[in-house]
Amino acid sequence: MIKLLLLTKQSFTEIVRLAIEEDLGAGDITTNSTIPPSLTGTGRFISKDSGIICGWPVVREVFAQLNPDIKLEIFLDDGTETSPGETLGVISGPVREILSGERVALNFLQHLSGVATRTHTLVGLISEYPGVRLVDTRKTIPGFRALDKYAVRVGGGHNHRHNLMDAVLIKDNHIAAAGSIKKAVESARARIPHTMKIEVEVGSETQVLEALEAGVDVIMLDNMTPQQIKAMVKLINKRALIEVSGKITEENIKKIAACGVDIISSGVLTHSVKALDISLNIDLHK
Amino acid sequence: MIKLLLLTKQSFTEIVRLAIEEDLGAGDITTNSTIPPSLTGTGRFISKDSGIICGWPVVREVFAQLNPDIKLEIFLDDGTETSPGETLGVISGPVREILSGERVALNFLQHLSGVATRTHTLVGLISEYPGVRLVDTRKTIPGFRALDKYAVRVGGGHNHRHNLMDAVLIKDNHIAAAGSIKKAVESARARIPHTMKIEVEVGSETQVLEALEAGVDVIMLDNMTPQQIKAMVKLINKRALIEVSGKITEENIKKIAACGVDIISSGVLTHSVKALDISLNIDLHK
Amino acid sequence: MIKLLLLTKQSFTEIVRLAIEEDLGAGDITTNSTIPPSLTGTGRFISKDSGIICGWPVVREVFAQLNPDIKLEIFLDDGTETSPGETLGVISGPVREILSGERVALNFLQHLSGVATRTHTLVGLISEYPGVRLVDTRKTIPGFRALDKYAVRVGGGHNHRHNLMDAVLIKDNHIAAAGSIKKAVESARARIPHTMKIEVEVGSETQVLEALEAGVDVIMLDNMTPQQIKAMVKLINKRALIEVSGKITEENIKKIAACGVDIISSGVLTHSVKALDISLNIDLHK
Amino acid sequence: MIKLLLLTKQSFTEIVRLAIEEDLGAGDITTNSTIPPSLTGTGRFISKDSGIICGWPVVREVFAQLNPDIKLEIFLDDGTETSPGETLGVISGPVREILSGERVALNFLQHLSGVATRTHTLVGLISEYPGVRLVDTRKTIPGFRALDKYAVRVGGGHNHRHNLMDAVLIKDNHIAAAGSIKKAVESARARIPHTMKIEVEVGSETQVLEALEAGVDVIMLDNMTPQQIKAMVKLINKRALIEVSGKITEENIKKIAACGVDIISSGVLTHSVKALDISLNIDLHK
Amino acid sequence: MIKLLLLTKQSFTEIVRLAIEEDLGAGDITTNSTIPPSLTGTGRFISKDSGIICGWPVVREVFAQLNPDIKLEIFLDDGTETSPGETLGVISGPVREILSGERVALNFLQHLSGVATRTHTLVGLISEYPGVRLVDTRKTIPGFRALDKYAVRVGGGHNHRHNLMDAVLIKDNHIAAAGSIKKAVESARARIPHTMKIEVEVGSETQVLEALEAGVDVIMLDNMTPQQIKAMVKLINKRALIEVSGKITEENIKKIAACGVDIISSGVLTHSVKALDISLNIDLHK
Amino acid sequence: MIKLLLLTKQSFTEIVRLAIEEDLGAGDITTNSTIPPSLTGTGRFISKDSGIICGWPVVREVFAQLNPDIKLEIFLDDGTETSPGETLGVISGPVREILSGERVALNFLQHLSGVATRTHTLVGLISEYPGVRLVDTRKTIPGFRALDKYAVRVGGGHNHRHNLMDAVLIKDNHIAAAGSIKKAVESARARIPHTMKIEVEVGSETQVLEALEAGVDVIMLDNMTPQQIKAMVKLINKRALIEVSGKITEENIKKIAACGVDIISSGVLTHSVKALDISLNIDLHK
Repeated sequence: MIKLLLLTKQSFTEIVRLAIEEDLGAGDITTNSTIPPSLTGTGRFISKDSGIICGWPVVREVFAQLNPDIKLEIFLDDGTETSPGETLGVISGPVREILSGERVALNFLQHLSGVATRTHTLVGLISEYPGVRLVDTRKTIPGFRALDKYAVRVGGGHNHRHNLMDAVLIKDNHIAAAGSIKKAVESARARIPHTMKIEVEVGSETQVLEALEAGVDVIMLDNMTPQQIKAMVKLINKRALIEVSGKITEENIKKIAACGVDIISSGVLTHSVKALDISLNIDLHK
Repeated sequence: MIKLLLLTKQSFTEIVRLAIEEDLGAGDITTNSTIPPSLTGTGRFISKDSGIICGWPVVREVFAQLNPDIKLEIFLDDGTETSPGETLGVISGPVREILSGERVALNFLQHLSGVATRTHTLVGLISEYPGVRLVDTRKTIPGFRALDKYAVRVGGGHNHRHNLMDAVLIKDNHIAAAGSIKKAVESARARIPHTMKIEVEVGSETQVLEALEAGVDVIMLDNMTPQQIKAMVKLINKRALIEVSGKITEENIKKIAACGVDIISSGVLTHSVKALDISLNIDLHK
Repeated sequence: MIKLLLLTKQSFTEIVRLAIEEDLGAGDITTNSTIPPSLTGTGRFISKDSGIICGWPVVREVFAQLNPDIKLEIFLDDGTETSPGETLGVISGPVREILSGERVALNFLQHLSGVATRTHTLVGLISEYPGVRLVDTRKTIPGFRALDKYAVRVGGGHNHRHNLMDAVLIKDNHIAAAGSIKKAVESARARIPHTMKIEVEVGSETQVLEALEAGVDVIMLDNMTPQQIKAMVKLINKRALIEVSGKITEENIKKIAACGVDIISSGVLTHSVKALDISLNIDLHK
Repeated sequence: MIKLLLLTKQSFTEIVRLAIEEDLGAGDITTNSTIPPSLTGTGRFISKDSGIICGWPVVREVFAQLNPDIKLEIFLDDGTETSPGETLGVISGPVREILSGERVALNFLQHLSGVATRTHTLVGLISEYPGVRLVDTRKTIPGFRALDKYAVRVGGGHNHRHNLMDAVLIKDNHIAAAGSIKKAVESARARIPHTMKIEVEVGSETQVLEALEAGVDVIMLDNMTPQQIKAMVKLINKRALIEVSGKITEENIKKIAACGVDIISSGVLTHSVKALDISLNIDLHK
Repeated sequence: MIKLLLLTKQSFTEIVRLAIEEDLGAGDITTNSTIPPSLTGTGRFISKDSGIICGWPVVREVFAQLNPDIKLEIFLDDGTETSPGETLGVISGPVREILSGERVALNFLQHLSGVATRTHTLVGLISEYPGVRLVDTRKTIPGFRALDKYAVRVGGGHNHRHNLMDAVLIKDNHIAAAGSIKKAVESARARIPHTMKIEVEVGSETQVLEALEAGVDVIMLDNMTPQQIKAMVKLINKRALIEVSGKITEENIKKIAACGVDIISSGVLTHSVKALDISLNIDLHK
Repeated sequence: MIKLLLLTKQSFTEIVRLAIEEDLGAGDITTNSTIPPSLTGTGRFISKDSGIICGWPVVREVFAQLNPDIKLEIFLDDGTETSPGETLGVISGPVREILSGERVALNFLQHLSGVATRTHTLVGLISEYPGVRLVDTRKTIPGFRALDKYAVRVGGGHNHRHNLMDAVLIKDNHIAAAGSIKKAVESARARIPHTMKIEVEVGSETQVLEALEAGVDVIMLDNMTPQQIKAMVKLINKRALIEVSGKITEENIKKIAACGVDIISSGVLTHSVKALDISLNIDLHK
């Protein structure tokens, strides 16, 4: 299944351009003053850890921007599992730009593979509940929202809303300000397109009932125990999608999935990413 | 000691602006349709973990861009240690923009505090060797180079070069392409300003001797054992600064510092950051 | 009810900045070489037609960018009906920038008031069916999407999705490519966040049934007669929202609303806008 | 005669890029999740109304930016008359981007053809006075100045100044501020390049005489009756170009042209554009 | 007489911003690490040469962007003559930003004063011919067009067209391509607004006659001797403005002015500028 | 020896783009309305003076941006000496864009060749002291820093730091603010990467001794006589690099070089550039 990279070509190009500019400044002075422009070479991306590879489109763009003569052959596509020592792909062409782009490319590839790997692990823990979606949150590194969400999908997860304009998600402060769940929902519904969904975060049975009465599309159960969740699932009875949020761990995720919820959302997929260890070994063609 | 935020006002403004745009899209539809513009409130930043706080200048900029009427009072400045439950600062003003900016502000604050905390821990391990600098690398999240390096300084570390134009760092591929350490150094020196330093990465005693003969400013010892490092320190004998790099851990850092080196560089400070857990508790002024 | 201007402050500022740059070029050479910078004046915005005023936030921004000393007092807010000869608002301050900004401000104000006026007229025709929403389409002037949609809301209408990423809207080509409505819906649902709705455009009873079975959120009836529409409303029976689209006119809109549909969408609100005639009469303070 | 598109390649590219970004957001989620990237198709642009076609360069750029593999064959060039049912051009290539670009392309093409059609109609009404130019004004949709002026030329009209820096046009407020027509003209002439013309808007015979004495290049007669215009034409006697402005309609334009003026300017060409109805019918290559 | 700075506020701000970014990079590391942010000081701009001062608006913008708390008091305004040792103005405020902005401010001020001084000298040489304008050309430093043209006006000169879109200037290649002066002029006139002038560069009496017949507004006599120029002035006899161009020097300019021409254009005003020597002496408030 | 153009591809592209935009505005109205797009031609770049050619990469980029079909063949590469009448290179392709780009290309080429020529002259005067570097300063035209520094290298000189973030250069105000040379150096060293050098400007023997004690990398002797310089060279005795600055002229440079210094820096290379006279002679292919 094709994983869509949901950001405009322009944004994608710009993210990579800024990353290159950040790392190169006015140019790679070391490489440019020691390596002739005509020298070519080959680099092998080697995995030094187990995990899910993610980020080839970015790697390709990094080197394309630096020198269109650089060729990239991918052996393990985005979404594939790798193990230590495996060659993930091979790059060849002018050594100058291979060297200059190495760190930027690896910084992207290692981080995104880290996100995909973490997601894959957690998704694996709830694999016997195929109807349950593991989704991300807005706890992403600033500037990496679209890429991090892509990595979550590559790792087998799904996405929550991309930004604050994508969907309505009413939380405690909104309810307090509007006066009630009913009022908050009505106020939002009157202003949004009919194509937009409304989700409400609730903390009690009373709130669940209010949300159902208000006709919301999704109910988010916040910090409830598995037992409470099960009761709410029964109460809601398919009248709204059910999302569970808060303190998801490798230990409790399966228990939560077993409660019959539709969606489990977890910030841990993206806020504290352990980069996957990958290196690039370059041989000169001399 | 003042920690300098080394990036132009323009870049700083732009990083924050892009982060806001990424998270808000065309606007926080939920907040804007449930909360009146006149409603004010107060939010307390609460630490839920132990660590070093870092990122207030960014937090301040986030809310300043959203609404200049928002006031931020900081209780624990950047570089201060915190423990769970502590109030780090208080924000007050229009609730709409406090809510809309909450996630962006926390995403920055938690990530940067994570970098500072990790740095602080490692620096603490070598505190009995005050002459040894712990420095970062270029293994930073794309787009976060300047902020991550700021967080390293806030955590008590120092910076390596910021980008590939800042200083010459000759590695194996450069040496192979140029023919020898001597040739690589001469080729670089002929082209760079006299204000720029030259560092060479070496893996053997022979290479150390070549580097010294070439008159380099800094010698980086790559993946050597403490015993080998000690021998090289003796051999170099203050004729160049000595940096040690590669696989620095909480376990081995003290042993390496004890070898008499000047600089220890470690990618772990920035490439796999565990966000510090911080929340923002908001009370409405109703 | 507050009308939200759903676009980032940055985009809003930029739209106005580009409009000023387009009209002023390197500067208003006539005004700058005949009028001293110290001369002040007052300008009255006069309606020369009947309609709904819309666009003050843009007018305010135009003059704020040209000279922050210019004051704007609004007599008839966005959404108010006006009649010929009425003074809509008064501007005062440095004459130079009042003159330089006049045309840009009026170009925005007249166009947006034109959109609001057209919307208001059509909404008025279906006022006895308060449950029916009149919504816009993506047939907007390039660059004016957010402003035109704001004007539709100001005129009493509602918005359809803002762009192609906001919601899924499956049309004939998508169905043909996917193989069936069912396959298209499933393929989309697997990839989108659970917070996003799915709408399908259908042209026959068979397709309506397929869409219902696929569990879509909204069904768009394309170019059906009122009689056909009524039949479909009965068939759908609240299991999905119902939108009617295609060739909406002042003549047929009431008949369609009477069929019991939820949404009527019409490109005519924005694709052929008749500007509302408004002038700015300036008096110099000499 | 070639119609020049007077705007830089950069601006042109940017206008189209922003229009695409506005309509696609992060991507066409429907198309991308239902249509495989390999599927190709053909689309025919069909006129559903009579008028003058204008906008192919923009249409070409829209699809070029989305996917360079898309081919566009134009049957009726910019400036050609069309009638309902005619095929204007054919597009072929990857269906994904044809569908994603359809609305943006049509929004440009329909608006610009609307401007060209209106211009063509009015120019036709004064075709027996070939020495009289019909020109546009600055009453254009913000962001569309250059494109709208291109459409006016395509429709057979001419352009007035493009922006406030292009030429001097002294109006009542400038005269009042400077003290007299003479003083205003002298003040402007002292500051402008010798390559720039000076035009003055006048409302009486006295002002015409003052303007002639001041040696202006163009005299604009504001809101005069045909009889008054004829008298002024005689009085001016070729000593300056004569422009007539204000309330030009299909009814009075011929009478005004018959007065012997050089230029008739009319805001109606661009401020209330009726889009020409054009559709794109797409067939999949399955 | 007020000298207009003919470029948009946005462009002006941007030129200064880029200059600061170019000189500061990520920050003035020396100043920021040796001078406390609270330290204030005073700087005096001292002329070390004779000439015409030009550039204060840029200097003001430089420091305003760096720190709005910096105050600038100007003693000798733009256009004033200065002599060695004179204090031109005084700046005071935070020393950090005064030091960081010093070089950028002086680079602008010295260059622009150089342009104004050169212009002033040449204008002085033809002061007994007040009807003759000395104008600049398009031989300006890329990026400095608007500022250099401002400095020319400040020095007492006038401007030629600002760019290739401002006016028609037909030269030998255009004539050759079009077939004749007549054809070139007609082809241009048909396409340009009636507010735009047409100038033709000619090299012979025959061409002057052709140009007059074609009704051009300005005739540029290229590389003619004073005797030839005088003959052409007599021939043209006020039927067009007369510009003389090519190899203007301090030696020949008066002789050319004496021929009765209207305009003398000279690239030397801007293409080889000798910076006026100005320094900034800073005293710390300790 | 390859001369590196030390600025990012993006910056380089942008500098050229802005220069084109500045000169063309919305388009070369004269050329576009007199010359058919199909007409091709050939242009020869002719030197009209003696000097060093510099700027071909910029010339190539100018025409590449205007029309990729334009071919440029270079006869005398950057860094080559030329004499009057020599053909430097030949350009061929569409005449429209050759004419439109002519002035921008020459403005760059003449200025940069002027910088290279001046540098070459001064370097020639100290050629018998090969160990002495002639370096530039930050006295460059705003926006031209990287290009001017490239031209200095092309002319045989070297560069000083590119901007204020590149290296520490402590001057009198920094010393005064910090309290002493020692304190200023220590304060800077504590904050900068170990890869960055520290230079101090000194005016006396006492300061030289302080600087040596503080362990600086470079000592700049400010406005000293050759005799004083010689004494300082002896005193410093290779313990730091020695730079001499201030009032370098063609008369005194050799004497200073003879003192045994390492670096001579001179603002005259870039602040008052005499453009090298170069013309472009175009022949149409008719």
